[in-house]
Amino acid sequence: MQKVTISRKFELSASHRYWRDAWSEEKNKKEFGLCISPYGHGHNYELHVTITGDINPETGMIVNLTVLKSRVKNILNQFDHKFLNLDTDYFKDKIPTTENIALVLFELIDEDLSKDGYELVRIRLYERHDLYAEVWK
Amino acid sequence: MQKVTISRKFELSASHRYWRDAWSEEKNKKEFGLCISPYGHGHNYELHVTITGDINPETGMIVNLTVLKSRVKNILNQFDHKFLNLDTDYFKDKIPTTENIALVLFELIDEDLSKDGYELVRIRLYERHDLYAEVWK
Amino acid sequence: MQKVTISRKFELSASHRYWRDAWSEEKNKKEFGLCISPYGHGHNYELHVTITGDINPETGMIVNLTVLKSRVKNILNQFDHKFLNLDTDYFKDKIPTTENIALVLFELIDEDLSKDGYELVRIRLYERHDLYAEVWK
Amino acid sequence: MQKVTISRKFELSASHRYWRDAWSEEKNKKEFGLCISPYGHGHNYELHVTITGDINPETGMIVNLTVLKSRVKNILNQFDHKFLNLDTDYFKDKIPTTENIALVLFELIDEDLSKDGYELVRIRLYERHDLYAEVWK
Amino acid sequence: MQKVTISRKFELSASHRYWRDAWSEEKNKKEFGLCISPYGHGHNYELHVTITGDINPETGMIVNLTVLKSRVKNILNQFDHKFLNLDTDYFKDKIPTTENIALVLFELIDEDLSKDGYELVRIRLYERHDLYAEVWK
Amino acid sequence: MQKVTISRKFELSASHRYWRDAWSEEKNKKEFGLCISPYGHGHNYELHVTITGDINPETGMIVNLTVLKSRVKNILNQFDHKFLNLDTDYFKDKIPTTENIALVLFELIDEDLSKDGYELVRIRLYERHDLYAEVWK
Repeated sequence: MQKVTISRKFELSASHRYWRDAWSEEKNKKEFGLCISPYGHGHNYELHVTITGDINPETGMIVNLTVLKSRVKNILNQFDHKFLNLDTDYFKDKIPTTENIALVLFELIDEDLSKDGYELVRIRLYERHDLYAEVWK
Repeated sequence: MQKVTISRKFELSASHRYWRDAWSEEKNKKEFGLCISPYGHGHNYELHVTITGDINPETGMIVNLTVLKSRVKNILNQFDHKFLNLDTDYFKDKIPTTENIALVLFELIDEDLSKDGYELVRIRLYERHDLYAEVWK
Repeated sequence: MQKVTISRKFELSASHRYWRDAWSEEKNKKEFGLCISPYGHGHNYELHVTITGDINPETGMIVNLTVLKSRVKNILNQFDHKFLNLDTDYFKDKIPTTENIALVLFELIDEDLSKDGYELVRIRLYERHDLYAEVWK
Repeated sequence: MQKVTISRKFELSASHRYWRDAWSEEKNKKEFGLCISPYGHGHNYELHVTITGDINPETGMIVNLTVLKSRVKNILNQFDHKFLNLDTDYFKDKIPTTENIALVLFELIDEDLSKDGYELVRIRLYERHDLYAEVWK
Repeated sequence: MQKVTISRKFELSASHRYWRDAWSEEKNKKEFGLCISPYGHGHNYELHVTITGDINPETGMIVNLTVLKSRVKNILNQFDHKFLNLDTDYFKDKIPTTENIALVLFELIDEDLSKDGYELVRIRLYERHDLYAEVWK
Repeated sequence: MQKVTISRKFELSASHRYWRDAWSEEKNKKEFGLCISPYGHGHNYELHVTITGDINPETGMIVNLTVLKSRVKNILNQFDHKFLNLDTDYFKDKIPTTENIALVLFELIDEDLSKDGYELVRIRLYERHDLYAEVWK
């Protein structure tokens, strides 16, 4: 029996800063390089959301893409065109690295989709074309 | 021991329509949106075909790419530059969604390649740059 | 003095057929190859729209992108998710090649934007990633 | 006689905000939408720098790419990983739109390269994959 | 009256070496860096060929793409899967830089296409995704 | 509990030749086609390196990307701007196919990263945009 997934790409533009108050400026610079710039800098993030489940025999779809788009965009609205450190509550005590942003997005999307029985398989988050994190359970 | 796969991308241009006769126009529109347009619309599909197996020590290859290209293109000829609903027999009773097209292609390619011992691991089918299905066993 | 343009990419999915009734099937096939398939086939078209003009000193913009998107999408609605030969009036007497579609789009967008003083410099229309037409005045 | 140019792509990550103090929040929101977010948001900018000139018959090059990279990166260091509104002096009195950033970069790169006789033909600045400005003289 | 061009992308894989016998190894290294490696190194080149002319009212085409592909590929066969310095005669006395390869290709394609009245407007040659030359008359 | 990986893309330009001395020219040509060209030909390879491990709670990172880049580039220096058959020792007795190059790179990177406890999950090596191998354990 074949397994099938469907994946949809989303985009968001956000800015962030890497900095730990508990560290000296020297240590911050050593660990985080240019990312310590005080007012932050930004990226065009790309998010791939991958869903699995039975294909509805009437629609031929695992999930209606209009529904998926609406739900994921509703979550991404908290992050899009925002400074992640100050405009959201998720990075008060952790650095908004690609890994950490991906973990936060996975949990939010998984929690939301699972309410209606959609199964989130995996997300992939690109910070740049040459850097991405993946999260799955 | 390492596992190795080799993947080749193929392209095809096809059109399709989402429509169920058993449903009213309103229900079709609600489920399928713009995709109910009567004469169809189309896409540049991209298909990634991933093969595994032992590497032939003489050629350094899992599969000769000329052979792989020839066999997969031979299958894709049924779909390329076609209206999937009317020009093929695969979507008489199911909607040609990305999921369903990917399932049909997986079965055809898997059946063909397995005749000569090639092991199809997975396919990925892009309908657009931001939408794709994956199928594996 | 520098010259500046701003360009925005749009996407549409449509299908088309190359066929001339005045020609025999043989001649159609010789000229148009696979594109004579009777029910058509399709593409994900990408359209780049390039505008010039003075930069508004208050907004820093040649054109407000929300306005540009709204006007261009309003025009593209006639073509998106359509079979260009039958669903539009523009290709009754000409083949919907990339060149001809680009000409039609240029004229429609140019006429619309010039009403409010926006200057359309050039459009580029991709039928596939490896084939595109450009139109300018 | 043929004309020849050579182009090199550069990348930078920065953040920005669109806001005019002289306007009400309502007017700012109407003109600039999500871009008024107070702490800014960001992008992965891509900059294409196009140079022309005689091809040096010994090196076969219009410009040594190591030299070009070094000079352009030296300029981009003022912008990379920065919040353009606060970390640079160029946008104190103008909005850091794609058009305005491209104009600033063109002037800086043109002034620097012309010192040694390199002729800058054109720059193209992508804010996103679907939005870019071009500047030339 | 609008002007129209049609462009087609081609791909070739070749290798090359930057080296001048008249120079010392030190000077070669200083000018050409890693590109002096004795057995060469290689690239996936992408070539964009842009044609203009009247649109044939019967076919809707400036040039039949099958004809264009055949003619350009016939020329590229001299370069594809070759070591440009030794396998071709064009770089006996000049370095196979992106600029010089583009000039050679422009002349060959222009000469060939002009025999049948096709007008070559411009070529663009990518050596990498971030480096390209353009040639026109 | 979620699993997380971080991936970084690297680029290298190299050339190679497919040829077996033990075979006749006819057999070499039949198996390897254009790739038997005596002086080789080349590609822009892209390498995706995927790492997993615990996220350091202080840095938010599985691995510091500056460290990862430095270590992987140090390994790639043996291959970048080289003719793989003659300039490296890895392909004396095996053909430098995408599969074999990927295996060599996986072993070198895995051995190097595991010294300091970094866990290499998978690599993906593109020879061209439409051909890639993956290796994992």
